[in-house]
Amino acid sequence: MSGNIPSESQLSVGVEVGPTSTLVALVDATANVIAQEAIPRDAVAKKNIAAALHLVRRLCAEAGITVPDLKAIGICHPGVVSSHNGTISFASSLGIGGTPYPLGAVVEAQTGVPTVVDNVATASALGVAHHNTFHEFHVSREFAVNYEPEWKNQRADFAYLSLGFSLAVGLVLNGYVRRGTVVEGEIGHIPIQPGGLPCHCGQRGCLERYASRSAISRLWPAGGEGDDAITTMFDAAASGNAAALAASSEFADAVATAIRIVILSSGVHGVAIGGPLASAGEPLIAAVRAALDRHATHSPFIEGLGLPSRVDLAPPDVPVGAIGAAALASGDYASPLMVPQVYTIRDTP
Amino acid sequence: MSGNIPSESQLSVGVEVGPTSTLVALVDATANVIAQEAIPRDAVAKKNIAAALHLVRRLCAEAGITVPDLKAIGICHPGVVSSHNGTISFASSLGIGGTPYPLGAVVEAQTGVPTVVDNVATASALGVAHHNTFHEFHVSREFAVNYEPEWKNQRADFAYLSLGFSLAVGLVLNGYVRRGTVVEGEIGHIPIQPGGLPCHCGQRGCLERYASRSAISRLWPAGGEGDDAITTMFDAAASGNAAALAASSEFADAVATAIRIVILSSGVHGVAIGGPLASAGEPLIAAVRAALDRHATHSPFIEGLGLPSRVDLAPPDVPVGAIGAAALASGDYASPLMVPQVYTIRDTP
Repeated sequence: MSGNIPSESQLSVGVEVGPTSTLVALVDATANVIAQEAIPRDAVAKKNIAAALHLVRRLCAEAGITVPDLKAIGICHPGVVSSHNGTISFASSLGIGGTPYPLGAVVEAQTGVPTVVDNVATASALGVAHHNTFHEFHVSREFAVNYEPEWKNQRADFAYLSLGFSLAVGLVLNGYVRRGTVVEGEIGHIPIQPGGLPCHCGQRGCLERYASRSAISRLWPAGGEGDDAITTMFDAAASGNAAALAASSEFADAVATAIRIVILSSGVHGVAIGGPLASAGEPLIAAVRAALDRHATHSPFIEGLGLPSRVDLAPPDVPVGAIGAAALASGDYASPLMVPQVYTIRDTP
Repeated sequence: MSGNIPSESQLSVGVEVGPTSTLVALVDATANVIAQEAIPRDAVAKKNIAAALHLVRRLCAEAGITVPDLKAIGICHPGVVSSHNGTISFASSLGIGGTPYPLGAVVEAQTGVPTVVDNVATASALGVAHHNTFHEFHVSREFAVNYEPEWKNQRADFAYLSLGFSLAVGLVLNGYVRRGTVVEGEIGHIPIQPGGLPCHCGQRGCLERYASRSAISRLWPAGGEGDDAITTMFDAAASGNAAALAASSEFADAVATAIRIVILSSGVHGVAIGGPLASAGEPLIAAVRAALDRHATHSPFIEGLGLPSRVDLAPPDVPVGAIGAAALASGDYASPLMVPQVYTIRDTP
């Protein structure tokens, strides 16, 4: 009866391209990761693609399917990405600038599988929403009175703040991921310091220069160039090192500035912090919440926003970018994520 | 057969509350204004409400209906507004701070008509969309190649930038007005100048201090305190007055900064400039476009965004806030505004 219809896999592949590595995940229709593996990045784009596709073939074979069985391939990439064209324009962390690179078309030609390319922050936001929707707020009673009636039973509404080589946000607004505008969420290139540090984008004083990996290298040179420098900085701060305390406080101030910009401009209910630097974990979140508290000191308006309670870590050790990219490629992103927010009222002393 | 069903008017009232006046409009179901009138503001909230309701009754009578015939009353107000509660919290231009004022409940009790309260920028964005959707872009060929495939046949997607006593944006994203988050679009309180001018919100260096009416008073004191100071500033600049040129350029820089923040954070396709200061018209837009060009001088990334072509004036002499408030109150806001964007390619020399 259905002899001519090929058996279709419900599995998709999500690929997360980063400045130092590429992660490939095999994802099922309910956003569960069946298998995942990361490979180091090669400086040559072609070699990266060949290595990633080799890994895709192997993961498929281990799962008992072939590449053409895949429902879709979703790739998420830093920088300015046209999801319609499947092209990458500016992605300074990967040395792409100016001429759009047709990544989607190249992968689709080599695999025969429908391929979608989108921004890494956008895909990660969707991945967080699918994995474990960001919805719990520990708020003051006053905050709950002002906000709960408005937010109750609303759909998922948050930003995913990607802290790594670059700084960007992905937005899930009223249950839908915001995409297709080419530059949604490029907050890293909002200048916050007139005449400040030069940025690779050509402007000066960009937020990204104060709240990304390069800021850690500058503020805490003892930590070296790797992503774990942030952990050594917070470790040193915890043991009372004055330089580390000052560095971590300054870094947290910039992250808090990013959060304030995101919430004041889009009104998202919460902000999930992810990306390589989020590996610093609880000390990072504690420092960011303290910075948000400091920023509210003289402003009843800012204090009333209850920002510290609206920030949390994205689920660690989950490849949210790959999950989100797979969901975007397979078309699952279209359905609104209806997740009532939960309020735990915390009376302040 | 339908003897017991009262004949229902399809007319709603939209009210736009401003720092110096209150505008009342009678609006039909297709967002046409049947009648409108503005009254000066009284310092006492109760007196304002009484005067506005008196005007509502008169406009209804002139249209041959009574107040209870109205489908809905929509009120838009500056500041932090809970559309669910119908309350106003912070609205510094009107001296409201801290204790929420239940404006919606008060008006509903006095009229018996379902009343909705929302933010003035949010309502105005919807009013612009209903009146004359903001959708035409004069872009470079390069821009069109990058953006047109992504944007073509998308829904209305823009920000309404309200320039007046305060600075805020309303967002229409993918055809839906963004609302119900309590603080969507409060970009005026994003600090852009560390240790800068004190703001009534308690922070320092807020964008609002550089791109609102108070900035005009400071930069161009010769213009006095009224909203027409901006026009005298641009007039003087046009006739070569060096102080006026510097003042208008500095003001335009701040407005351009606001536009860059809005586009980089939410990715809106366009920005419509409205509010009392938009009465300055074409000289204002020209100065803002020149500032956006200046900001792109050293940044191929910013230049690639094509910001100058994405900015235009909101339709002048249209009470977009009242139209939008009426649409929000009558429930028309729910339908997405499907308006394909039009590209006029302008080859740069």
